[in-house]
Parts: sequence; structure tokens; C-alpha cells
Amino acid sequence: MEKKKNISMAVIKRLPKYHRYLKELMDNDVDRISSKELGEKIGFTASQIRQDLNCFGDFGQQGYGYNVRELFNQIRSILGLDKEYKTIIIGAGNIGQAIANYTGFHKLGFQLTGIFDANPKLVGMKIQDIEIREIDTLKEHLKENSIDIGIICVPRINAQRVCDVLVEGGVKGVWNFAPVDLNVPEGVTVENVHLSESMLTLIYLLHSKEEMEQ
Amino acid sequence: MEKKKNISMAVIKRLPKYHRYLKELMDNDVDRISSKELGEKIGFTASQIRQDLNCFGDFGQQGYGYNVRELFNQIRSILGLDKEYKTIIIGAGNIGQAIANYTGFHKLGFQLTGIFDANPKLVGMKIQDIEIREIDTLKEHLKENSIDIGIICVPRINAQRVCDVLVEGGVKGVWNFAPVDLNVPEGVTVENVHLSESMLTLIYLLHSKEEMEQ
Repeated sequence: MEKKKNISMAVIKRLPKYHRYLKELMDNDVDRISSKELGEKIGFTASQIRQDLNCFGDFGQQGYGYNVRELFNQIRSILGLDKEYKTIIIGAGNIGQAIANYTGFHKLGFQLTGIFDANPKLVGMKIQDIEIREIDTLKEHLKENSIDIGIICVPRINAQRVCDVLVEGGVKGVWNFAPVDLNVPEGVTVENVHLSESMLTLIYLLHSKEEMEQ
Repeated sequence: MEKKKNISMAVIKRLPKYHRYLKELMDNDVDRISSKELGEKIGFTASQIRQDLNCFGDFGQQGYGYNVRELFNQIRSILGLDKEYKTIIIGAGNIGQAIANYTGFHKLGFQLTGIFDANPKLVGMKIQDIEIREIDTLKEHLKENSIDIGIICVPRINAQRVCDVLVEGGVKGVWNFAPVDLNVPEGVTVENVHLSESMLTLIYLLHSKEEMEQ
């Protein structure tokens, strides 16, 4: 199956949604589905769905629709979920602990190999059987383990410094929860979760609706 | 100052970023800034910045640039941050606790008035001086308090039901952390934080880069 290069970010951002809905269909023992039905579930048009999935190869069959399990497995493989990813968390505060405890990530193939913090009160504590280590041991850990993904949950002011250490240690994927835009060299991918910005968007929409009603 | 209606979602999504960068400038005692300099900091073009800010009124002055504090205050007011928002959290698991403990939201004008959970082990515990209450008391709390924002941190399977209770209780803004797309009536705003989908996007980008390098 030939994969088209240069897939747009918009399509990529929709893939996890396909993954989620197909998982749900499988859990409900649905074997096959048409692009129209799938579209109605997800809230996309049938032609949008056909177009999206065509970016990755020739999936559906005219008159039959999609085989749910097959499509799910192919999307898993496209997303890269048929592998394991060695992951570490830097910053064991509220968000760091929540991420470490979130069992969903284990299911996605994450292997959490370390949690690091600068706070001596946290160092030595265990989350999910993993001991929180001194941040000073991070470089060594990166040297000894081939880490794929670093999850940055430190305060804004320290985020770029931590990111630089990760990149120098060979990390290629950064999941950033600090409210800052990180600078990384080419070849390193950053995905941001800016909680404050999401909250501000909600407030703005709420506030502007109220104004319109007045 | 006349505010243009129908501001695009793309502009709205950029406003929190302006807010964040202007706050940083103020913290560093910068009094004024040109659209060019501001653009370089944020990573937008100068004309993009002028265009964005023009949606909300006539801010900058030719040859002078923007007064940082004034612009910051105006963006705060546009975002609706000059008010207080009564907020509750439903679901006091990992994410719910992290949000409750996150001091950044207090600074944005959130007044957390309640935390609810169905788990008897959690009920009675205190987070930030607020006692976790039985989920069955949620309806009553909504009736007695005029709640603006509900933060949904319950498992996927319960999210729509909780959302329905919130909407019935007059909540107009929902910040949803459950990995599900909620159905709400017109007039209610939902902002989603789908952590798994963000993580899947990161993995996809990582995985596809690796493939290209091979």
C-alpha cells in the first residue's frame, strides 16, 4: 500500500478521532460500516471521510463499506501505535502526576521509564511503581536509555532548559504542558497542551455570547 | 470602540497567545512594542498582528506601536477576564485534582465553588480547602449557585450524563476532559481537551518522520 506524502495537518488531527470512534464500534461488535454512517457518527461528511482515508491507501469497498477491525488496525499502524514508545515525565507536580497515573497512555503503548523532579520532597516517592528521581540524573538516564518521548510538566520558566536537555539526549518527541512555545531543532516534534489557552478560549466564547444576548 | 461581530475561530484561538506574551512583556517592564517586534516574539507576521487586533478595535498608533499595558488590559477585557467565573469540577480523579490544584486558574478569575465525585473514598477529602462532595448533590448545588463553568473530568462513559445535568442546571460553559464529543443545546459552549488525541498526534508525527528517514 503506497502512502501519500505531505498529508495535511488537518487530516492528521482527525486521525485520532477515527481511531476513537472505530474502537467504540468494535467494542459494540459492529463489523462493518459505510462512510455515510461513519460520517454521521463522527460529524464529518461521507466524502470527507473517503477523502481522508484515501490519503493513506485504498480502504473501503464500493457497496460494502469499511471492515471496522481492518480499518482500525490500519489506522493504528498509520498512527504508529503498533510500536512501544519509551517515555519519561519531567516535573512531578499536579499535571505530571496526573499524566503518570493516567492508565490510558499505557494502553496506547507507552512505556513510562522515568519521572524526574527538582523538589526533594517529591524525589523518592513512587507513582505507578516508578520512583521519582532527582532532575540532575536526567542526562544520565537519557544516555543509558533510548527515550522516544519526553513529557514536560515543569513550570514555564524551566521548560526550555529541560527541553534542551531532552533534545541533546536524543529525544525526538516532546509533549509540552508548560505554557510556553519551545524552540527545538528540525527533526524534533513538539505537541503542546496549553491548558490556560484552552480555558481562555472557553471564557471568550462564553463572554461574547453573553454580550450578544444583552 | 465598535467590536466587529463574527470573528473567526482562528483569531479567537490566537488571543490567549497575545495575552500570554503581553503578560511576559509587562513582567519584563516593556512599555511599548511595535507590531513587527511583537510578531517576531510570537511568531506571527506584523501584518497578521495588525489584522488580528483590528478585529476588536483601533489599538496601535502609527510610529509608536502598542502600549503594552493598555493592549494587555484591552485583550483581558475582550477575553472576558475582567469578570469572575463560578466554576465547579466534576470528577476528582487524577485530572480533576490536577485542575483543582492548578493555581493558574485562580489568577484568571476562576472561583472554584465545588468539586464532585461518585467515589465514596474521595468524598469528604479536601482540595484547596474545598471538600469533595457526593455527585448526587450536584443538582442541588447548581440550583442554589449560579455556576458559569463546569469542568468535566469523569470517565468517558459518564460524561454525557454529567453534561446534561450541568446544562439543565444552567451552566453555559463546559470544559471537557473526557475523550468524547458532547451533545449540548445551542447557547452552551464546549471546549475540549482531548489528551489522548493530542498524544496520538505526537506519535503519528514522530512515527512518520522515522519512516521518511528510513
